[in-house]
Amino acid sequence: MKQKLSILKIGGNVIEDDQSLSHLLQLFSKIEGHKILVHGGGKKATEIGNTLGIEAKMINGRRITNAESLDVAIMVYAGLVNKKIVAQLQAFDCNAIGMSGADGNAILAHKRPVKEVDFGFVGDVESIHSINISNLIKANFTPVFCALTHDGNGQLFNTNADTIAAELAIGMSSEFETTLYYCFEKKGVLQSIEDEDSVIQHINLKKYEALLANGTIADGMLPKMHNCFHALQHNVKKVCIGDSNMLLKENSNFTTLTL
Amino acid sequence: MKQKLSILKIGGNVIEDDQSLSHLLQLFSKIEGHKILVHGGGKKATEIGNTLGIEAKMINGRRITNAESLDVAIMVYAGLVNKKIVAQLQAFDCNAIGMSGADGNAILAHKRPVKEVDFGFVGDVESIHSINISNLIKANFTPVFCALTHDGNGQLFNTNADTIAAELAIGMSSEFETTLYYCFEKKGVLQSIEDEDSVIQHINLKKYEALLANGTIADGMLPKMHNCFHALQHNVKKVCIGDSNMLLKENSNFTTLTL
Repeated sequence: MKQKLSILKIGGNVIEDDQSLSHLLQLFSKIEGHKILVHGGGKKATEIGNTLGIEAKMINGRRITNAESLDVAIMVYAGLVNKKIVAQLQAFDCNAIGMSGADGNAILAHKRPVKEVDFGFVGDVESIHSINISNLIKANFTPVFCALTHDGNGQLFNTNADTIAAELAIGMSSEFETTLYYCFEKKGVLQSIEDEDSVIQHINLKKYEALLANGTIADGMLPKMHNCFHALQHNVKKVCIGDSNMLLKENSNFTTLTL
Repeated sequence: MKQKLSILKIGGNVIEDDQSLSHLLQLFSKIEGHKILVHGGGKKATEIGNTLGIEAKMINGRRITNAESLDVAIMVYAGLVNKKIVAQLQAFDCNAIGMSGADGNAILAHKRPVKEVDFGFVGDVESIHSINISNLIKANFTPVFCALTHDGNGQLFNTNADTIAAELAIGMSSEFETTLYYCFEKKGVLQSIEDEDSVIQHINLKKYEALLANGTIADGMLPKMHNCFHALQHNVKKVCIGDSNMLLKENSNFTTLTL
């Protein structure tokens, strides 16, 4: 029987508030069994970029990563945010080890092909080096991934943290029974965005298609849900979406996705 | 018989020049057997600090690390410098994994006690968690340490990279036959600082004391040499000092230190 592995992705809103982050890291540290944390960068990268006089370049509303803004991403994601999370997890007796996709050759990517837009140093995930990650996990380390990948030739890339979490979950599922947790500011996928308590507790593929068709899943939830079902269709056992209280054992008020 | 472990410390001058760094990383990747890299931050931290409007505070000529300059150190050392080194080593087929002292709880430190000067967030090394580092090495990872430590309670510290290298070498010597390499801009310890080729090829404890007494070892070399002999007196097998060509097999024109 495969061993269980929990992969938790935390986003900007949680990271930006010290108290929320600390609360969440404490809950994460208590998850039993093997686990991996994946984090985004939050607004800190934009803030520091602005102070350094590096403007976030946008084309058609999409963010472009040039060499300078990649440096800022590396400093903030792999430096400031990652190391503070690692140091805090160590304080909660969780043997965290901070990683980018280059560390341990964990996540190989290639530059996103130029179609209408050249996104710059943005990487699309090519493969997960699951054996290396598995070696870390089995040696009782808890990998903490920031949203950076590499091409194996010395180039780092900016990569969406939701995508990294999904690809890690898929890659690790050959060896582990994997549950993917997406932690964000809402209690789950909502029936009505005006009602914070209208959490849809269970969504399977059929219901997902219905929710897509009637427009309940829209905007920012579209790529997130796409990542979830992509993961489920590639051997990930279960995906959960909710706020940090999703990690409390007594709480079941979040969204669980299965095929 | 103990397995061999090479620990290489590289400093600012090498890091600041892309070509020198690449040359050195290629040589490092070819070192046979287990190895660890330790790097400083170079002038990049001062540069970025200045651009961010964070002045390097000095008291009696000693640098003070306040909360803001610690953040810059974390961003530059653990982020920018560490990840670029890791990505480059991966390109040379060396399975590097970037670390601060918090990652894998590798290096525990405490805030430097306040005597005449409060250095701020500067850590004095307390202990090396050699078992965790050894687990990484045995799983064929090559740890790449930046000059940061932690206190186990969530606080990161700035710590001198030479000291980290020496303490790592000491800590790992219980399990490995350890050689410590200090790579800097000169060919070795010089008889005369005016003559770049006056390399003293071998220094033992007796000669060290003589060189101290006659003033040959002075200024910046004093703490470096102190670290070297401190390491040798705590079970490190050998210490070598020289420029990056020290890693070339055919070269013997550098300084070797033994007890």
